[in-house]
Amino acid sequence: MRQPVDRTPVWMMRQAGRYLPEYRATRARAGDFLSLCKNTPLACEVTLQPLERYPLDAAILFSDILTIPDALGLGLYFETGEGPKFRRTIRSAADVDALPTLTADTDLDYVMRAVSTIRQELNGRVPLIGFSGSPWTLATYMVEGGSSRDFREAKRLMYSEPAVMHRLLDHLARSVTDYLNSQIRAGAQAVQIFDTWGGVLSTWAYDEFSLRYMKKIVNGLIREYGGRRVPVILFTKNGGQWLESIADSGADAVGLDWTTDIGNARARVGDRVALQGNMDPAMLFAPPARIRQEVADILRRYGSGPGHIFNLGHGITPDVDPAHAGAFIEAVVELSPEYHR
Amino acid sequence: MRQPVDRTPVWMMRQAGRYLPEYRATRARAGDFLSLCKNTPLACEVTLQPLERYPLDAAILFSDILTIPDALGLGLYFETGEGPKFRRTIRSAADVDALPTLTADTDLDYVMRAVSTIRQELNGRVPLIGFSGSPWTLATYMVEGGSSRDFREAKRLMYSEPAVMHRLLDHLARSVTDYLNSQIRAGAQAVQIFDTWGGVLSTWAYDEFSLRYMKKIVNGLIREYGGRRVPVILFTKNGGQWLESIADSGADAVGLDWTTDIGNARARVGDRVALQGNMDPAMLFAPPARIRQEVADILRRYGSGPGHIFNLGHGITPDVDPAHAGAFIEAVVELSPEYHR
Repeated sequence: MRQPVDRTPVWMMRQAGRYLPEYRATRARAGDFLSLCKNTPLACEVTLQPLERYPLDAAILFSDILTIPDALGLGLYFETGEGPKFRRTIRSAADVDALPTLTADTDLDYVMRAVSTIRQELNGRVPLIGFSGSPWTLATYMVEGGSSRDFREAKRLMYSEPAVMHRLLDHLARSVTDYLNSQIRAGAQAVQIFDTWGGVLSTWAYDEFSLRYMKKIVNGLIREYGGRRVPVILFTKNGGQWLESIADSGADAVGLDWTTDIGNARARVGDRVALQGNMDPAMLFAPPARIRQEVADILRRYGSGPGHIFNLGHGITPDVDPAHAGAFIEAVVELSPEYHR
Repeated sequence: MRQPVDRTPVWMMRQAGRYLPEYRATRARAGDFLSLCKNTPLACEVTLQPLERYPLDAAILFSDILTIPDALGLGLYFETGEGPKFRRTIRSAADVDALPTLTADTDLDYVMRAVSTIRQELNGRVPLIGFSGSPWTLATYMVEGGSSRDFREAKRLMYSEPAVMHRLLDHLARSVTDYLNSQIRAGAQAVQIFDTWGGVLSTWAYDEFSLRYMKKIVNGLIREYGGRRVPVILFTKNGGQWLESIADSGADAVGLDWTTDIGNARARVGDRVALQGNMDPAMLFAPPARIRQEVADILRRYGSGPGHIFNLGHGITPDVDPAHAGAFIEAVVELSPEYHR
């Protein structure tokens, strides 16, 4: 990353997703979402679908951020319109101590099979990005038993019994490190850590309960594989206030949500890290001409030179028109070369 | 505000609320939430309840942030566990143009009756704070028809037809100005503008679609009444990235949610404004000793001198133990005097 390029690279979080009719068709064949994640040929198929439509610069592994807690025995399931849920929750020291040690190669072998199959199918066309949820983000789901509005159970544990929360996060940091290293050995050429819920913490709690464990992971990752650098991207939604410390984490790139001005972000982090982002996914509901104008504005704010990966500031939403996603990517392809002369 | 005091003043957003058993009893007598808002003696009763329990430094008008759209004919109602909803939505230029002009004194006379009754009952004990939702926040509910996760309809309108959104926001800014001025004339001694959803915008869109209209309101408010200054507090949840521009709005105080370090915030805004905040409301689920430690940490981060109003970083949640709220307030009362010598 931060290498000279002819144009700004572009990919989209959740690019293999429900907004694509071909994805919905494949998912219907698989049954539910989890069956699709666990079906190697079909997970490979949906990972490649957006690359057939758009000139994207990376494939992103089709999987879920909650595979680790599922493999740890919590029983992940999805209820329509309700988001992910777990059959078991983690709320005490005894619950944490009873968690098994993850061996990703065997416990999440379906993910590794998908990674190696996708790499073979890609055949060098574009790199493959693997990913995991962050320890704090995984912990919120494990403690709450699903999504939450106010994270009261996760915060109750964190504030009341910080040592127990730290033990859980430490267990998860080791699990995520093993999981991402397995993905790298299976063929992932870059990895991203998704901290969807770090932004619900206060500044000190973010440092202590989220960033600290992401740093541990970054330090434990295979950073060179097959003779090439394996870049690590760290994304904390609503982490714009903490960019300096995120940029000091050891990651190669920092993901920005749309609330942060990318020109201001670049000024704050300098050339320590690349920046990934950051168009509001809701912009894809606007007409293509408006989308193009927003792409132009973000390119202008970032300015000239390398170090920008164009992306949305969060995952693409299900009812976006695929033609609008196309207009977004086309605008990056057409408008960015002037910033790389 | 920013006057020398013996200790840091303290109040809580939503301090008249469901966490208090006496509130639940009064509400049961009123029927539903909206009936309670519209019942002058009972709205007065619940406003005063937290003052009977705790040494709070202000009464906060018991009302809802969505009274204005309701008065504009949208038909506010509440479904259990679902949050607020509107029977009609605003999605087009025609919808905006059909909105009536608000005359708060008559259209929201029940609010003004509550304000004057509470002032009489308070009899100078502590000041009364009135409030309103911000134009952007009101607009999101009016366009979406209720709460939202991704604000797609509000953003679709904002991005696709910005002129229509601006007309709606302008209408709302005039309505909020009239509403808050009526509250001031009825007896409110300070007013707060709640921008619950400004933080879902990108930096430029926050300036253009939220902050700009809050500035218009601040400029249109009665700032001296009955020979005294009427302070204005401006609170944008997740607005920590934009503190400098919020502090330049003309408001007397800026509300901080818990994600921002209050010491850092003070360094950024200097003595231009007072700061209100900012303990995580979820801290109230922790044991009282832990709550006390957090209060001590926040006081220490803010440091010595005037300009801090202690508060939660957002509204108190329904299932907090009232004894924990008491421990919070007691800690502020006991620990803050050393910062005011």
